[in-house]
Amino acid sequence: MGTIIKGKEIANKYKKEISDFVENRKKEFKRVPCISTILVGNDAGSMLYAKNQKRICEQLGLKYILNTFEENTKEKEIIDNIERLNSDNNVDGIILMLPLPKHLNEKYITSKISYKKDIDGLTDINTGMFYKGEKCFIPCTPKGIVKLIESTGINIEGKNAVVVGRSNIVGKPIAHLLLNKNATVTICHSKTKNLKEVCKSADILIAAIGKPNFINEEFVKKGAVVIDVGTNRVEGKVVGDVYFEKVINKADYVTPVPGGVGAMTTTMLMLNTCEALNRNVY
Amino acid sequence: MGTIIKGKEIANKYKKEISDFVENRKKEFKRVPCISTILVGNDAGSMLYAKNQKRICEQLGLKYILNTFEENTKEKEIIDNIERLNSDNNVDGIILMLPLPKHLNEKYITSKISYKKDIDGLTDINTGMFYKGEKCFIPCTPKGIVKLIESTGINIEGKNAVVVGRSNIVGKPIAHLLLNKNATVTICHSKTKNLKEVCKSADILIAAIGKPNFINEEFVKKGAVVIDVGTNRVEGKVVGDVYFEKVINKADYVTPVPGGVGAMTTTMLMLNTCEALNRNVY
Repeated sequence: MGTIIKGKEIANKYKKEISDFVENRKKEFKRVPCISTILVGNDAGSMLYAKNQKRICEQLGLKYILNTFEENTKEKEIIDNIERLNSDNNVDGIILMLPLPKHLNEKYITSKISYKKDIDGLTDINTGMFYKGEKCFIPCTPKGIVKLIESTGINIEGKNAVVVGRSNIVGKPIAHLLLNKNATVTICHSKTKNLKEVCKSADILIAAIGKPNFINEEFVKKGAVVIDVGTNRVEGKVVGDVYFEKVINKADYVTPVPGGVGAMTTTMLMLNTCEALNRNVY
Repeated sequence: MGTIIKGKEIANKYKKEISDFVENRKKEFKRVPCISTILVGNDAGSMLYAKNQKRICEQLGLKYILNTFEENTKEKEIIDNIERLNSDNNVDGIILMLPLPKHLNEKYITSKISYKKDIDGLTDINTGMFYKGEKCFIPCTPKGIVKLIESTGINIEGKNAVVVGRSNIVGKPIAHLLLNKNATVTICHSKTKNLKEVCKSADILIAAIGKPNFINEEFVKKGAVVIDVGTNRVEGKVVGDVYFEKVINKADYVTPVPGGVGAMTTTMLMLNTCEALNRNVY
């Protein structure tokens, strides 16, 4: 039977690194890293996520500022606020909570965030630098996935990695990161023929499809590392794209859902904030 | 024996479309598309390329303006010029000839080009939009490659495409474009194990490695479409990455070198210029 990749434990390791970093700064009488989040309106998901960000920031010693705006706020007011945060040397990371209310142009407003503080990696400039392989903010979910794979101790170089799914937030960026780590990378999707055979050639299999329990043992090579990015709601429960109970008997390593990829994301956001502070020397 | 994909003939088809577009604008008393190129110093390659741009612009009826600067020009002067071109409603495309003289920061100066006129697709913003799948300028070499593949009449959707090479200007963007066309895409490189076997699984094989005649018939599946992006100089001759004489007997379609991919590039630049004019409504 394979080993479960425990996302929460691995996240805790990085949380420890972050709080040590913060503590060391305090000892040197330096300011702590700071996230400033912009929340417009009353989107329930965004409010919950902001609360979660605040909790983890407090836990790790980061400063967290929440800038709330009424649902009907004008574009100019939000952009003015972003520009104020861009030039505030005490702010390291800016988070714009999406979705914005419908009267606001998300793409345009996002583009106003300085790429130097774009810890979510949402701006086109950061995305461009990312795919050019330049130093930039790595989006949190794919960043966490690489750390989960590396936690197994396997060497990614030369491995066959198969990514099922090609979204902008998971499939494409994780394919790019694995390519940077010298894997041979195949990207599959709904139009892929012989998906089963392609997946079975994978030493590292990333499932980001959005179909509950879709990847069963027939898609998995013996000894593979299987990363489940799915978060499907089935009868009130969160279920991954990987049929865990069947795949764990064939793969060497599998991430669970929940407690796998999802457990890493916010921690990676905090890590990006520390990187922002280290990079932007004020 | 397979069919030769004649890049020059296909480029001529697009040239005809472009000159028809220009003629129609003239008939409607509208201005013709305009490229403004910035050339700093005396780089021989850049000077030759600028000359070539001018020739094709004249041939197709586009306006071409060459802005030359002394080798020791200060950064500010070049940026001022770019900003002037950005706001000039009679200029559709801006080309910054690279490499710049060593005292100039290429990345910073490039970033000053408006993404709306970045017909070469060099800016981070355009690159970000490209990988997000948004409407933007598609870099010329990969754009030409897709048109060459489509010229064969094969349907890219569901095909296995293998890209050998992962450069920012060819490997990565062509992989992304083929993914957008619903191919299953594998990216290989120097660390790929069993390169021969992986290539042999390809319905569409893109060779962008930089090793003369490296891809021989043993890498090719019978009936494949093989695109050779290599331009290696061997004993004064330009040689591709594909061993043409051997591969043509196995593949259904092969691009020659020269006369294949390279024959498309400047025409694609002109096509991007027309697209810029159509997109930016002044």
